[in-house]
Amino acid sequence: MTMEPFRLHILGCGSAKPSNGHLPSCQVLDLRGKLYMIDCGEGAQMQWSRVGLGMTRLGHIFISHSHGDHCFGLPGLISTMGLLGRTADLHLHAPADLRPFVECVLEGFCKEMDYKVYFHEVDTRQYSLVHEDRSVEVWSLPLRHRMPCAGYLFREKPLLPHIRPEMLEAYHIPVSQVNNIKAGQDWVTEEGEVIPHERLTRPADPPRSYAYCSDTLYRPQLAEWVQGVDVLFHEATFGEEYLRRAQQTGHSTARQAALVADAAHVKRLLVGHYSGRVKDEEAHLAEARAVFPETYLTREGQVWEVK
Amino acid sequence: MTMEPFRLHILGCGSAKPSNGHLPSCQVLDLRGKLYMIDCGEGAQMQWSRVGLGMTRLGHIFISHSHGDHCFGLPGLISTMGLLGRTADLHLHAPADLRPFVECVLEGFCKEMDYKVYFHEVDTRQYSLVHEDRSVEVWSLPLRHRMPCAGYLFREKPLLPHIRPEMLEAYHIPVSQVNNIKAGQDWVTEEGEVIPHERLTRPADPPRSYAYCSDTLYRPQLAEWVQGVDVLFHEATFGEEYLRRAQQTGHSTARQAALVADAAHVKRLLVGHYSGRVKDEEAHLAEARAVFPETYLTREGQVWEVK
Repeated sequence: MTMEPFRLHILGCGSAKPSNGHLPSCQVLDLRGKLYMIDCGEGAQMQWSRVGLGMTRLGHIFISHSHGDHCFGLPGLISTMGLLGRTADLHLHAPADLRPFVECVLEGFCKEMDYKVYFHEVDTRQYSLVHEDRSVEVWSLPLRHRMPCAGYLFREKPLLPHIRPEMLEAYHIPVSQVNNIKAGQDWVTEEGEVIPHERLTRPADPPRSYAYCSDTLYRPQLAEWVQGVDVLFHEATFGEEYLRRAQQTGHSTARQAALVADAAHVKRLLVGHYSGRVKDEEAHLAEARAVFPETYLTREGQVWEVK
Repeated sequence: MTMEPFRLHILGCGSAKPSNGHLPSCQVLDLRGKLYMIDCGEGAQMQWSRVGLGMTRLGHIFISHSHGDHCFGLPGLISTMGLLGRTADLHLHAPADLRPFVECVLEGFCKEMDYKVYFHEVDTRQYSLVHEDRSVEVWSLPLRHRMPCAGYLFREKPLLPHIRPEMLEAYHIPVSQVNNIKAGQDWVTEEGEVIPHERLTRPADPPRSYAYCSDTLYRPQLAEWVQGVDVLFHEATFGEEYLRRAQQTGHSTARQAALVADAAHVKRLLVGHYSGRVKDEEAHLAEARAVFPETYLTREGQVWEVK
């Protein structure tokens, strides 16, 4: 059984200061052949180039908020795609206050590009549909940070059932009919016998889901929106010893990230957005695992299968 | 004999597309205790952090022109210095058309910073003094690119002569007098004998110089302005097999960079700003060395002593 990919690439998982060797926030979701970028910290285009993903498959970028460590990779990425001869539209989804920066970059550096960048304002105050295509729905998650900030929930659309190859063979069904049968059409044999499509297929895989929550104060209500997702990324900027600083700066601790994951009954929690104050990442992980054992640290270059 | 440093750090030596593993243009000159940045491509702050130079010693940044691969590191660098609590002014020297981008970044991301960024327009049409302090004069070099573009020439100010320790001892001269003697004061012994300061010192080291020329078409006239410099960096975006493309895009070949170095009788030529079309950097080097043997390839992380 080969499943269509739902794969998360970690391009950057640090916070604003580069001192701890991490790169600022950037992730790419490879979802049934399309690529979706989430946040675009400085260095995103270099990381992208290292990962070797084709830029033409990227149609949408989702930015959480207008702090530099989540968007300063945009000028380089947008320009380089222009240099590479991109012609397809690019859609940027972000809180309204990022618009002047994007317009300034397009105006100052991108006048000769052969493609268009569309800016879509994201509602950071409520859970709302941001984007929808054949494969996915993307919802905004209202986060609590020092400025308007949205998380993003990617809900895969229902998949088609799997064809049973042995049944194709038994009933001499031509391959040209596979898509019709998957879509729910029964098969009529030459003798006039009707074979219900359910007999010719196995049930579809359950749709997959991924939620990205960064940057945010600990917000228990998040658990309602991300209930049961396969993979949750939740920022864990600090450890509990810096709880007060987390509260002051609009961030969460590793333990708080785990509390959200636990309340939401997610399958797996990924943490990141490490402050330079996180000196021992394994201890950071242990803090989260004490609450939610299925927690993992993100690192640049990782690929996670969402399942 | 310890000399005060005049040291060039290569932070990035690629061109716009990150495909060849290089980072975009960025250099830092460590000159008698002060740091001067030349161009600031994306990733500059991460590279800076890797090199481990203190940001407080940086007072001036010189940008050649407003192509993204020479300035997209500014937003991150400026913001991070704010987060690190910088209070000292920062001076940005650049062609006028970079101003809107810088203002947009300061307006959108830097309002809470405790330091000021001053933008100084650089004259890209003539050789002119851009900056001067106790240690150095910085001159603009008019380059020929697809937009207003300046190179920069760093001329060290004359150094003081070296004291001769054995003479201090012979005449029982207290250490407190060293700076006066270096500055040209003679010494009078207790017996009234006048010892000329020339006898107490060795001649000063000759002032050092560094010139940065990127991006530019082959411009033979450059050799006049950079005549005899210790180290010349000259872009060598292409090899001779792409001469036509170099001309079309406002760049030079490795051979052309070497022709400038040769005509200017510089001591050493550094080349960089490699296009993705440069597949074999050793061949690129050979092309330049055929004209000017003292040519070297730049690479990220290198440190060159200017002498």
